[in-house]
Amino acid sequence: MSGAASNEHFWAVIPAGGAGTRLWPLSRAGSPKFLHDLTDSGRSLLQATWDRLLPLTGDRVVVVTGQAHEVAVRAQLPDLPGDQLLAEPSPRDSMAAIGWAAAVLEARDPDAVLGSFAADHVITDERLFRESVAAAVEAAEQGFVVTIGIEPTSPATGFGYIEMGEPLGERPARAVRQFVEKPERARAEEYLATGRFRWNAGMFVVRATVLLDQLARWHPELAAGLRSLAAGSAALEELWPSLEKIAIDHAVAEPAAAEGRVAVVPGSFGWDDVGDFGSLGALLPDAAGMPGTRVLGDASVVRVVDASGVVVPRTGRVVAVVGLDDVVVVDTPDALLVVAKDRAQDVKAVVDALRAEGRTDLL
Amino acid sequence: MSGAASNEHFWAVIPAGGAGTRLWPLSRAGSPKFLHDLTDSGRSLLQATWDRLLPLTGDRVVVVTGQAHEVAVRAQLPDLPGDQLLAEPSPRDSMAAIGWAAAVLEARDPDAVLGSFAADHVITDERLFRESVAAAVEAAEQGFVVTIGIEPTSPATGFGYIEMGEPLGERPARAVRQFVEKPERARAEEYLATGRFRWNAGMFVVRATVLLDQLARWHPELAAGLRSLAAGSAALEELWPSLEKIAIDHAVAEPAAAEGRVAVVPGSFGWDDVGDFGSLGALLPDAAGMPGTRVLGDASVVRVVDASGVVVPRTGRVVAVVGLDDVVVVDTPDALLVVAKDRAQDVKAVVDALRAEGRTDLL
Repeated sequence: MSGAASNEHFWAVIPAGGAGTRLWPLSRAGSPKFLHDLTDSGRSLLQATWDRLLPLTGDRVVVVTGQAHEVAVRAQLPDLPGDQLLAEPSPRDSMAAIGWAAAVLEARDPDAVLGSFAADHVITDERLFRESVAAAVEAAEQGFVVTIGIEPTSPATGFGYIEMGEPLGERPARAVRQFVEKPERARAEEYLATGRFRWNAGMFVVRATVLLDQLARWHPELAAGLRSLAAGSAALEELWPSLEKIAIDHAVAEPAAAEGRVAVVPGSFGWDDVGDFGSLGALLPDAAGMPGTRVLGDASVVRVVDASGVVVPRTGRVVAVVGLDDVVVVDTPDALLVVAKDRAQDVKAVVDALRAEGRTDLL
Repeated sequence: MSGAASNEHFWAVIPAGGAGTRLWPLSRAGSPKFLHDLTDSGRSLLQATWDRLLPLTGDRVVVVTGQAHEVAVRAQLPDLPGDQLLAEPSPRDSMAAIGWAAAVLEARDPDAVLGSFAADHVITDERLFRESVAAAVEAAEQGFVVTIGIEPTSPATGFGYIEMGEPLGERPARAVRQFVEKPERARAEEYLATGRFRWNAGMFVVRATVLLDQLARWHPELAAGLRSLAAGSAALEELWPSLEKIAIDHAVAEPAAAEGRVAVVPGSFGWDDVGDFGSLGALLPDAAGMPGTRVLGDASVVRVVDASGVVVPRTGRVVAVVGLDDVVVVDTPDALLVVAKDRAQDVKAVVDALRAEGRTDLL
């Protein structure tokens, strides 16, 4: 197997965006999820993503983030070369973010292959992850748009799915039959029963030039805009707001899949998008002496009596939970959240209400 | 009916003690329950007790409290005459507290009748309360130790019960057959089924001299000590620690009942000892726009989504509760409590654990 680490044209692109709304009040607009250590590992999700890619790409990493987070990202990644951080004036969705990085890499190295990996996901088995990426790079070198399809462990309704088709020769990669949107529960169960469906984790591996050429077929202005940015022939602040706001899935992956240009490499390395406090809790071990209770932070301030769940103490105050199972308590200096673990997705409703009230100080 | 208000020998005694452990972290040793406004009325429980007694006794009120709370009590009750606050060097249970007040009143007025009413209870119908007290004063003038027996509204296991005997003549007062300790649930249900049992709210009305003479029969040293304190022939700081620590129920009410010296006046005025956050919640109305949610404090910081229960916001922070019914959230500057409403009594376990750890800063 040709290791990706030996491919000097392989670059990682890390889109570092997304507010992590369902992790409010821990994650905020000004301090989003990817900047936080959500696994008690001592490293933020962004740093863990960097660490995970290092054996594959060294410092051949481009981070795309909002201008508001540029300073924080540089502080967290001191080894990231200065010109490999792309700071977006405003969020223009994933196609603009990844496409900008692709255009920069294409200008720098016509043979560049990029792998896009979100800054705020967690991966359990890094060796298996690297093997899947290596296989994806191999397929990308053949000209495919390659995605890594995560082996589903439950009929989750919070992710899109990828339907796998026939194997592509000897490689682990297979054709993609279709991408499907987040399904209802019953549909998700059907998907799992077939054995053909994989979670879409938004991991794409593709030659920079292939990505932009494909984009140019369906969204020529966006592709041209991104290439002119990379060439220095357009001013970022002027051009950026005019770029089409579209996800890479819709812009390239779906139409390319319809033409048989997309491959999927199955991945079984343990993946989580830490989408809400339920999945955050599942990533943590039980706190000492508190079976069933997971603590992100200083467990010494937590007291439970006949209770279980997830506690995120962020103020130093004592947090006592009595007689409640599967409850999530998030204690921050200006906001306190108490939520049933199985309702963790509905934290978004609180954030939406605060936004509607104009309480941007809390968002 | 002879109104108690017209009886210039009738004095109210307010024992202001008790930590309100099950209301932690709102109630603390340094700022106990009776100093708090727990009904959102604008008056603390102590002040509401004073207000309720004013039509009966004017300023013929003696407050007995710990030395640690003397300043706070004087600040909350500016109209309390200076020599009518008795400050205990240490807690010696209810007999010493009420007996000290009785001895002071006996020395001041040999015909004094005292009524003892805890500083941290809530009463709904003050007119009916005053009628019951007036009837109790009438019976006390006949020489009885009189208690007011609260009509039970549920088979509560947190209170002692009083079994009523035969009526005493024309008066509403009846003989007391026995006092019984806090019962198990099944026993409490039996009590209610008989119609003869009443909650013991610790309200005693009795001539000061009768109380002390009865006490002298069973606890002569305690009675003598209290009388010597009132006479100024003993030094408080020296004598106090040597006084027997016993509840008035055990010291006088039970043995006197066995001899037919105790009467009970039935009271149906709505009473609550605000013993835990469950009963606290029941005393509050629904917060505007939040059916099922009761807020003690500023409801504008509370956000609920498919949730109900009790929120006590004490820090100004936003408190968001999602997908949980009958949950209690108490947010204070140094401690946060989340408890199932039906487990509100178990808050004591947290306090006990903190005490065992020596965390007196939090108690």
